[in-house]
Amino acid sequence: MVILRHKLQLAFIVIVSIALGLLLPSFYKAANQAMGISKDVSTPKISLGNTDASFTRGDEKMLTHNSLQRQHLRSSRPPLPPSSPPQTHPCTCGKGSKLLKDFIPPEQYEELQQQRAKEWKQYKERTTSVLSKPLYALPNSPLQYPIQGFTVQPLQPTLIPGLGMYAETRNSYKVVLKVSRGILNVVKKTTEATVEGEGSSTLTVESSKPHVINELLSNVSYTSAFYHINSGDLATFQFEDDEVVFPIAIKRTQMPILYKMGKDISSQVTIITKTFLRYPQLNKLIDSIRLFYTSVKIIIADDSIEPQKVSGDNIEQYIMPPSQGWFAGRNLGVSQVTTKYFLWVDDDFLFTKDTKIEKFVEVMEAIPDLDLVGGSVKENRFYFSLFYEEGDEEEGGCLYRKSHGHFHTLPGYPECFLADGVVNFFLARTDSVRKVGFDPKLQRVAHSEVFMDGMGSLMVASCSGVSVGHQSNSKTNKEYMKFRKPGEKDKVSKNQLHFSKNYLKCVKWG
Amino acid sequence: MVILRHKLQLAFIVIVSIALGLLLPSFYKAANQAMGISKDVSTPKISLGNTDASFTRGDEKMLTHNSLQRQHLRSSRPPLPPSSPPQTHPCTCGKGSKLLKDFIPPEQYEELQQQRAKEWKQYKERTTSVLSKPLYALPNSPLQYPIQGFTVQPLQPTLIPGLGMYAETRNSYKVVLKVSRGILNVVKKTTEATVEGEGSSTLTVESSKPHVINELLSNVSYTSAFYHINSGDLATFQFEDDEVVFPIAIKRTQMPILYKMGKDISSQVTIITKTFLRYPQLNKLIDSIRLFYTSVKIIIADDSIEPQKVSGDNIEQYIMPPSQGWFAGRNLGVSQVTTKYFLWVDDDFLFTKDTKIEKFVEVMEAIPDLDLVGGSVKENRFYFSLFYEEGDEEEGGCLYRKSHGHFHTLPGYPECFLADGVVNFFLARTDSVRKVGFDPKLQRVAHSEVFMDGMGSLMVASCSGVSVGHQSNSKTNKEYMKFRKPGEKDKVSKNQLHFSKNYLKCVKWG
Repeated sequence: MVILRHKLQLAFIVIVSIALGLLLPSFYKAANQAMGISKDVSTPKISLGNTDASFTRGDEKMLTHNSLQRQHLRSSRPPLPPSSPPQTHPCTCGKGSKLLKDFIPPEQYEELQQQRAKEWKQYKERTTSVLSKPLYALPNSPLQYPIQGFTVQPLQPTLIPGLGMYAETRNSYKVVLKVSRGILNVVKKTTEATVEGEGSSTLTVESSKPHVINELLSNVSYTSAFYHINSGDLATFQFEDDEVVFPIAIKRTQMPILYKMGKDISSQVTIITKTFLRYPQLNKLIDSIRLFYTSVKIIIADDSIEPQKVSGDNIEQYIMPPSQGWFAGRNLGVSQVTTKYFLWVDDDFLFTKDTKIEKFVEVMEAIPDLDLVGGSVKENRFYFSLFYEEGDEEEGGCLYRKSHGHFHTLPGYPECFLADGVVNFFLARTDSVRKVGFDPKLQRVAHSEVFMDGMGSLMVASCSGVSVGHQSNSKTNKEYMKFRKPGEKDKVSKNQLHFSKNYLKCVKWG
Repeated sequence: MVILRHKLQLAFIVIVSIALGLLLPSFYKAANQAMGISKDVSTPKISLGNTDASFTRGDEKMLTHNSLQRQHLRSSRPPLPPSSPPQTHPCTCGKGSKLLKDFIPPEQYEELQQQRAKEWKQYKERTTSVLSKPLYALPNSPLQYPIQGFTVQPLQPTLIPGLGMYAETRNSYKVVLKVSRGILNVVKKTTEATVEGEGSSTLTVESSKPHVINELLSNVSYTSAFYHINSGDLATFQFEDDEVVFPIAIKRTQMPILYKMGKDISSQVTIITKTFLRYPQLNKLIDSIRLFYTSVKIIIADDSIEPQKVSGDNIEQYIMPPSQGWFAGRNLGVSQVTTKYFLWVDDDFLFTKDTKIEKFVEVMEAIPDLDLVGGSVKENRFYFSLFYEEGDEEEGGCLYRKSHGHFHTLPGYPECFLADGVVNFFLARTDSVRKVGFDPKLQRVAHSEVFMDGMGSLMVASCSGVSVGHQSNSKTNKEYMKFRKPGEKDKVSKNQLHFSKNYLKCVKWG
């Protein structure tokens, strides 16, 4: 219709221009342009966010006003943001930072860094996919599509939702759908359209009726050509000069993991601790626990040099090889928990009337997003926030642990606020902390490290009003102190660990 | 410019139509329509994928051809797919499935199901966000925006990339940007535009110059109003009757966790096993390991009733409370590993010349996406695939374990293919398996369960050509067999566990 109108209108103008011969060229040109009679238009070919808008010459066919308009608008479009993530740049090590490089013997540095770079590459491969590419909806496109894409199970055909084409009237319509890591099919056929490329990665649909095109588009299925539990594909959807790209997430459904909680605290929480040469303190702790919680299971990880049997109802003692260390013990403890939550206590703590585990459970159950909530040891309500910059490929990131840094309070719990790390008296979701883990490589110098490894994985809160006591005599044990006091070797190895494991350039302890 | 052309063209046609007086009304009408002079249009208000397209009447102003065309096209738009995920429906328990309900005492069923439903609700809260809503790009919109959205750090201002508005010429342009869980700011001001709502969740930008609008839009920052490590917001971007919605991911960067691997196998792999009353077999296994791997660390989880010391270089024995069970032991073992990979073996296996750990490591390093690779025990290369339907809220899902089910081969490794589970001789990424864990609740009847819990989390492969031997005499130990043979109680509790933990209605073992 529109084309027809143009022809009539054009014919009319031409007749008139001859008949009267009083037309200024500018008039004619203006009229022609307004009616979309033009031979020189430019359109971007791709709708991926690419900085350099690459242009191609339009074809010779008469373009409708609408298309011309779109193209005119587009050609005036400023460049999109880069399609690849911004270039990495070195991060800044704040004043007082420890340069981790200084803890590595110069002769080992080169090799260690190469090895670390290789691991980093693998890590990036595991944590990014084609879907990490930023995509942009271009203005004035006749195409409709799912902008966040949709999720398919690997190897299973799935209908692509929300595809549509809404152009002006034409004699014939043709849309092309392309994917790169799967195949396309039409599940419901029709005789009114020509379909090419079924079972391949490029599907072409052509028809004189737009509603037939759209009917067909609502029946196109995607099947990933490969098995993967967490990957993706990018689909390109095209009509004439308009092209859009949308994501397809290829994901295996995860099996839900739920915990069974009863009404009594012992079906909800397990208390875990780690002991080393401190049986008097440990037994005092246990007695204090039993004053308030008679049947809660207590798990003891014991790496004493000459282990002594610790017995009692609902007490599980695990004997480790001698002096395996703090985090090995914590990780062992967590590995044996069968309740939804566990409470971490040091072996020289002391339960008091303010050691209200129920309070912790209440907060965790009220706010399911939480993974860990800490209290106070005596009057010490320690907490901190972390500042992390990824840094560049070569040198790695910068980390700053800021003591007493925290975020806003918990909705409904003004006595609690969010933070990145808390004191070594906390209740946590067993599965969440298992996912992060207490790195058994950390033997003597370790506490904040689990919160560093857990940054971005653990939602951490600190609450006032719940506290545990501390046995005053815990520092008197000579033999214990000999091991307890971290040697220079431990400090060095911890910094080397941050260098290799966390891809860090420096750490600042504030 | 465009308007001007229209005016000139219109003027010219009108003059001519008067001058000659030979115009058919249809001509004039056609010309007018071609130029977009019309008064009756309708447009949808919202671009969220909603089934019922709600329409509002356009205003009386003269609409350009482009807008008219868009609106005309839109009103003919078929409904979009539903914005909420499709209704859940009961899954089908295949022939031979075990109905888990049958393993639960009737008097407990009601309460157990309610408790399970509560946990399920929490699980859904933890695993979904506002971003789970499907969004669609509507055709012929003048707006440009990031379709997959972009990621911001909680509480940190971030520029919104790729926003733009490309409408035809008007006297004045006005765009509105709305968010619900954060605030908006303009980081670079200009006097040529009116900006309202800075520091609030609704930002209005108005100007007579489109390039000024676009310049401003490229300088709008979003700051989440709350701290969360993995949440999101939806932004609504509006120009006149055109409205689009795009996602904003609020995510805390995760700390990278890398492993340090040396060149020798003992810096790459730890062998872990679990023993119970089978010291002769265990010692035979250790001897066979040492024939081929003299220094690889061996971790032994021991829950024997009367533990005996097992010693030797690079051997770590952990003494558990008596008969804690298989998975408690496996989980303990994994919790103590400090290498990137671990190899799982039963205590009655026997290393042979075909027990090539290096081969496993080679495959894992070549394909970083892999989490676990299995071999064969003697001639038995066991593997399976899983079929899981989520099912409905009330009854839960259906699971089918299909023996010898597998997916395609590994690129570059024709002797390996992907599967969901393998035999109990495998090499795995330590961190990946820790994330899934061996559920310590499973005491005697357990192997496939770790792969069930790990469905969607573990990329599993099975390779031929790497095998371990099996000690023929391992079944002779009377006392062992007494414990080894699972009692009815174990089977019942395992099915109860699937009911509560995995939210399953039935399991089929094929």
